[in-house]
Amino acid sequence: MKKCCFLSVALLIFQLHVNAQPDSRKVINIPGIPGYLTLKCDLHMHTVFSDGNVWPSVRVAEAWQEGLDVIAISDHIEYHPHADDIPVQFGRAYEIAKPHADDMGLLLIKAAEITRQMPPGHFNCLFLEDVAALDQEDFWASIGAAVDQGAYIFWNHPGWRQKDEIPIWFSEHDSLYDLGWMHGMEIVNGGSYYPLAYQWCIEKGITIIGNSDVHNPTGFEYLTGGEETRSLTLVFAREKNIESVREALLAGRTAVWRGDELYGKPACLKAIFDQSVRVISQPVKLKGKGFSYIQVINESDIVFKLKMGEGLKGFGYAPEIVLYPGRIGTMPLQNLTDGKEGQADISIPYTVTNLFTGPEENLSVTLDMQVNFIPED
Amino acid sequence: MKKCCFLSVALLIFQLHVNAQPDSRKVINIPGIPGYLTLKCDLHMHTVFSDGNVWPSVRVAEAWQEGLDVIAISDHIEYHPHADDIPVQFGRAYEIAKPHADDMGLLLIKAAEITRQMPPGHFNCLFLEDVAALDQEDFWASIGAAVDQGAYIFWNHPGWRQKDEIPIWFSEHDSLYDLGWMHGMEIVNGGSYYPLAYQWCIEKGITIIGNSDVHNPTGFEYLTGGEETRSLTLVFAREKNIESVREALLAGRTAVWRGDELYGKPACLKAIFDQSVRVISQPVKLKGKGFSYIQVINESDIVFKLKMGEGLKGFGYAPEIVLYPGRIGTMPLQNLTDGKEGQADISIPYTVTNLFTGPEENLSVTLDMQVNFIPED
Amino acid sequence: MKKCCFLSVALLIFQLHVNAQPDSRKVINIPGIPGYLTLKCDLHMHTVFSDGNVWPSVRVAEAWQEGLDVIAISDHIEYHPHADDIPVQFGRAYEIAKPHADDMGLLLIKAAEITRQMPPGHFNCLFLEDVAALDQEDFWASIGAAVDQGAYIFWNHPGWRQKDEIPIWFSEHDSLYDLGWMHGMEIVNGGSYYPLAYQWCIEKGITIIGNSDVHNPTGFEYLTGGEETRSLTLVFAREKNIESVREALLAGRTAVWRGDELYGKPACLKAIFDQSVRVISQPVKLKGKGFSYIQVINESDIVFKLKMGEGLKGFGYAPEIVLYPGRIGTMPLQNLTDGKEGQADISIPYTVTNLFTGPEENLSVTLDMQVNFIPED
Amino acid sequence: MKKCCFLSVALLIFQLHVNAQPDSRKVINIPGIPGYLTLKCDLHMHTVFSDGNVWPSVRVAEAWQEGLDVIAISDHIEYHPHADDIPVQFGRAYEIAKPHADDMGLLLIKAAEITRQMPPGHFNCLFLEDVAALDQEDFWASIGAAVDQGAYIFWNHPGWRQKDEIPIWFSEHDSLYDLGWMHGMEIVNGGSYYPLAYQWCIEKGITIIGNSDVHNPTGFEYLTGGEETRSLTLVFAREKNIESVREALLAGRTAVWRGDELYGKPACLKAIFDQSVRVISQPVKLKGKGFSYIQVINESDIVFKLKMGEGLKGFGYAPEIVLYPGRIGTMPLQNLTDGKEGQADISIPYTVTNLFTGPEENLSVTLDMQVNFIPED
Repeated sequence: MKKCCFLSVALLIFQLHVNAQPDSRKVINIPGIPGYLTLKCDLHMHTVFSDGNVWPSVRVAEAWQEGLDVIAISDHIEYHPHADDIPVQFGRAYEIAKPHADDMGLLLIKAAEITRQMPPGHFNCLFLEDVAALDQEDFWASIGAAVDQGAYIFWNHPGWRQKDEIPIWFSEHDSLYDLGWMHGMEIVNGGSYYPLAYQWCIEKGITIIGNSDVHNPTGFEYLTGGEETRSLTLVFAREKNIESVREALLAGRTAVWRGDELYGKPACLKAIFDQSVRVISQPVKLKGKGFSYIQVINESDIVFKLKMGEGLKGFGYAPEIVLYPGRIGTMPLQNLTDGKEGQADISIPYTVTNLFTGPEENLSVTLDMQVNFIPED
Repeated sequence: MKKCCFLSVALLIFQLHVNAQPDSRKVINIPGIPGYLTLKCDLHMHTVFSDGNVWPSVRVAEAWQEGLDVIAISDHIEYHPHADDIPVQFGRAYEIAKPHADDMGLLLIKAAEITRQMPPGHFNCLFLEDVAALDQEDFWASIGAAVDQGAYIFWNHPGWRQKDEIPIWFSEHDSLYDLGWMHGMEIVNGGSYYPLAYQWCIEKGITIIGNSDVHNPTGFEYLTGGEETRSLTLVFAREKNIESVREALLAGRTAVWRGDELYGKPACLKAIFDQSVRVISQPVKLKGKGFSYIQVINESDIVFKLKMGEGLKGFGYAPEIVLYPGRIGTMPLQNLTDGKEGQADISIPYTVTNLFTGPEENLSVTLDMQVNFIPED
Repeated sequence: MKKCCFLSVALLIFQLHVNAQPDSRKVINIPGIPGYLTLKCDLHMHTVFSDGNVWPSVRVAEAWQEGLDVIAISDHIEYHPHADDIPVQFGRAYEIAKPHADDMGLLLIKAAEITRQMPPGHFNCLFLEDVAALDQEDFWASIGAAVDQGAYIFWNHPGWRQKDEIPIWFSEHDSLYDLGWMHGMEIVNGGSYYPLAYQWCIEKGITIIGNSDVHNPTGFEYLTGGEETRSLTLVFAREKNIESVREALLAGRTAVWRGDELYGKPACLKAIFDQSVRVISQPVKLKGKGFSYIQVINESDIVFKLKMGEGLKGFGYAPEIVLYPGRIGTMPLQNLTDGKEGQADISIPYTVTNLFTGPEENLSVTLDMQVNFIPED
Repeated sequence: MKKCCFLSVALLIFQLHVNAQPDSRKVINIPGIPGYLTLKCDLHMHTVFSDGNVWPSVRVAEAWQEGLDVIAISDHIEYHPHADDIPVQFGRAYEIAKPHADDMGLLLIKAAEITRQMPPGHFNCLFLEDVAALDQEDFWASIGAAVDQGAYIFWNHPGWRQKDEIPIWFSEHDSLYDLGWMHGMEIVNGGSYYPLAYQWCIEKGITIIGNSDVHNPTGFEYLTGGEETRSLTLVFAREKNIESVREALLAGRTAVWRGDELYGKPACLKAIFDQSVRVISQPVKLKGKGFSYIQVINESDIVFKLKMGEGLKGFGYAPEIVLYPGRIGTMPLQNLTDGKEGQADISIPYTVTNLFTGPEENLSVTLDMQVNFIPED
């Protein structure tokens, strides 16, 4: 559709090359660690310059429309099924997309994907200067060329093509890790999540990463810019620039978002939760052994699914509560003790069942509020 | 469905009477006049105690779920089609709903609808103490009983049952107005809008009101608590309490919301727009006679449909732009003058075609931004 | 909102009492057992005449809008929290709703809910003539009064208020069953599903039932008439009349629908699947050991989630496939055998993981198609 | 996202090149002229081989997902902004897309767009054999090369870049028309509609066409395969093959669909309406001068907006009624005459305000039903 036709009609002044320009951008609300920005990043995607099916500017337009801040186009070094029609040019997708990203205020990271049979598998290299230098027959020569440029390197979809998608850590991965060349690892790739990879990241101090690895238009699977969000890495950066992204990735200040789930260090996830959720109807009045509805606002775009934790005596409260994005939830709270009076601060313990601080561990939080005990008539 | 069954299973401690309690509340974002709250009010609705089809607690639950702050249940004084089953009790809906409204933090106004053939038609009386006192054969006795209680009185759906829904101002309305007994008027009732009523309000200094007048569950027509919003009065009140609502209504600090449209005084609508909309990609760089995309955020839940205004020379800009709720819009801006350099503040004039300061008049606004002119290479 | 105001404006001829009348009705497509109609039934719901919060006509309007064919309003015999305002009248909800149901072409069953502490719990009695006769102090007197009228009796939400919602079969239930007074049992009530109850139904030949048990407007939880469907009983009846519904219930020709899941006898579920699903791109061409996409249409409004079954040798096919309502799904099929030629009929075995022929058993089906084997070039 | 990863896990047998393959296809229900199929066709779209931004296989995948039957990729002959990266190959998009279209059962028409300044503007040529032959400096040489191949030729977006998008008929168009080289004309291109072009088509016997002219992923603007439909040509063809499409286009058996609106000859639109819409609650009972609700089903995916027509005396009926896709609408019907008895067939006249048989003319229809008059008690 000729989206800019109105311009020609009204003004006839623009000599636009019509870029892929959607008409509005989603705003993703995720509060982060105090003092840091929460940058929404997709660091793995493809274009027609490797085995993707869209022109590079489409990746910028999609990212802008979907509310992202940072993307890396990581076309394969070794795989070019469209080469008969599009002669191989390493780094060309970056060149084409860069002016469009600048116009739209997105950060674009120059990147590539080294693509080998497992082991060692596929690796994304970010912050490259010379993509062509990675085009080497030998894997170690290729990854070395990235290292020489100071690249940030992460292992992609470690469970891909393994039985039941369970990743295997080969000796090659030992070598990479020992050399300090495995900075990050995808624990999420598209819809896939690799719990064992998450475990490795925690044990070995590897930064967790989540990406879309999209090849086709993102709109094939959801309304671009609508409610659904692609798998992302949340990067907690000091500023919105390339250097800050690199610093945060190296420092391991990331969380991963996939569907309804968040993965990350307790401090990161706690910061997100605590700045998103708040009891708004304080002080809560409790008359005798009666109950009141407490109201809890969730100001973020992440759903929080709470399950009763342990430790608070003398009160009855909801075993389960879901706090929807941008909405106010409610739950009954009951005093179970006779003769209470006056005011008290209470903290109701909950576990957030969709926030994972480890493959088997969920974030613990409290809902904090002031309570007024009112004597029974 | 037994919404609270989990409580009995897990705790067996609550002795709830299961109220109509939805599980979450929508948050409506509408910034208002600085120094005032924007209260979302529906001041006209019915229950089984007149010709409505729901129990009073449903009105509270719906309002809570839909993000409202203030409601008035205004059952008819004269019309009780369910009387064979439900003996008439004036003000009973208020009594039933009040504890539930208190629990949920909603303001409930005691009210009634005087319901006569046109002329003079139907009138809502708010802030009543004794509803039964309005049960008088004679209209003037009835409205007088409301006046005696210091009621706030507004004329409902003035175009109802008139040809083409165009209202007629009868001598009875002169009398009411001259006596100071017509404080407000519905310019919107459900899906209906009465432009002539709006004109009268402007000319005569009558406060504009918009309500749902809902008789059935609101969910018959839209997902309660979803994206659609019922017709509302926005009241700009000093505080969230009954007295402040009355003060604001008397002072005429209201706007009316129906579907995509807002109606109100220029100062009210301007305040809403100016605090909702902002150019975020400043300074805008314009190279020679090239163009840039400017990005405009709309932080409110109201859509703004802009149409090019007049007065800005030397620039090309979009003839039309729609700013969707909670999203960032974009539009090209072009410099048309040779040899510009340095920095300038510019204001692009637009008309907001869905914000009505009068039946035929739209709000004028500007998009303000700083521009950097960069010489052509 | 004054839904019918346009009539008065345009014609001024109707003297309507404005019923709760939504503007359109959803059509639910579920093919059934050949020779029978699939009636969509909700046999358990409440109004203001017991502890519900809507007027009886709302139940008819909701059912019409949501595409139902049959409803039973089953107000409690023993529980009337609104009695101070609405004097108890047994069967009154039926009287009020009946003319509206007749107008809209819905079948309305006269019913009531006997409501006792567990054991024995709650029981719905359908096809009553005299509801008031059930108002007896003694449970057996009450249920006997229903039996005397030839009522159809089913046990409601057998797991309600039991630990973990797991139902317990008490001696009272033995008595009821032995007397032939437990014709049916709710294995689904609102969002709750009782697998153990389903097991009992299979073992004891009790008809399975699923209902909403709605007390508030159905629109509190989903857009009435939109995509979501309330929990229902599918009744496979010879004709659309009350007598046929009774006959089908007594004969056990039902299935239960809750969210994405269907429960029922193998023959019932198989009939639904086989008439809903069809391979449309036949004959499928398989060249050498290559593969083709087969296309499978699902003409019903039920999703089918298929998981690879066992038994077909020599072919590769999708381990999982989801057939969305009213859409065409696709999956690759590959020939694994050398030298095949000519044509063959094949049946790919699948298990439908969301169709339950028992608490632990899923329906087995086949996707049948004709295949053309084409020699490799 | 690695859509086919499950295959590798489960089978490890497929050596797929992962095409752009969405997981399900929408079914568009539009009944047509008896004896003909209604093929949903988009005959104008672009890929990276001219100024589009997607790989050709994306166009096939989108069309399959969105329920289309026929597409033509019509890359520009004269405009190749990606030529630095993708050497110009006329007809290459067709070659790439063809096997994928064959797999998915879509018809793909070999086509190109001749792209000149206005006059004469842009022209799509369908059913080409040799696209490169159209690459001629002179417009008439280019169009002649298409004619030589027996191409079907239509004028694209005739209002594009004209003042207020109003098309101008130049002498070049006279020449083309007189030579019999203007078989069709786009009266719809993307969101734009050209009423004057429609008028010309009617007067001159030119076939009406509507297309998307999409350059970016269709998912930029709507959920591919969701409820929204792109602008289309409905072709009423004898069979689903290329020859039948050509025959129908030459015979002028088309209609055009844009958003909620349909454009076409009275006979075509009437056939669609009459096979989509039916009164289902017959006979309608009318007691004395009372009223009944009639129920009207719309089995198509097109909305019909009806406005009261003239000619039926003695009855009151709805001035307006909207029949939503796949739903049942309702409206009151009232007898206005005393003393009627027995049975009668009546036809209520309506105008379909969103079905255009000409730029200013709407389709006239009737709702036909049998009525039983029942004497007042």
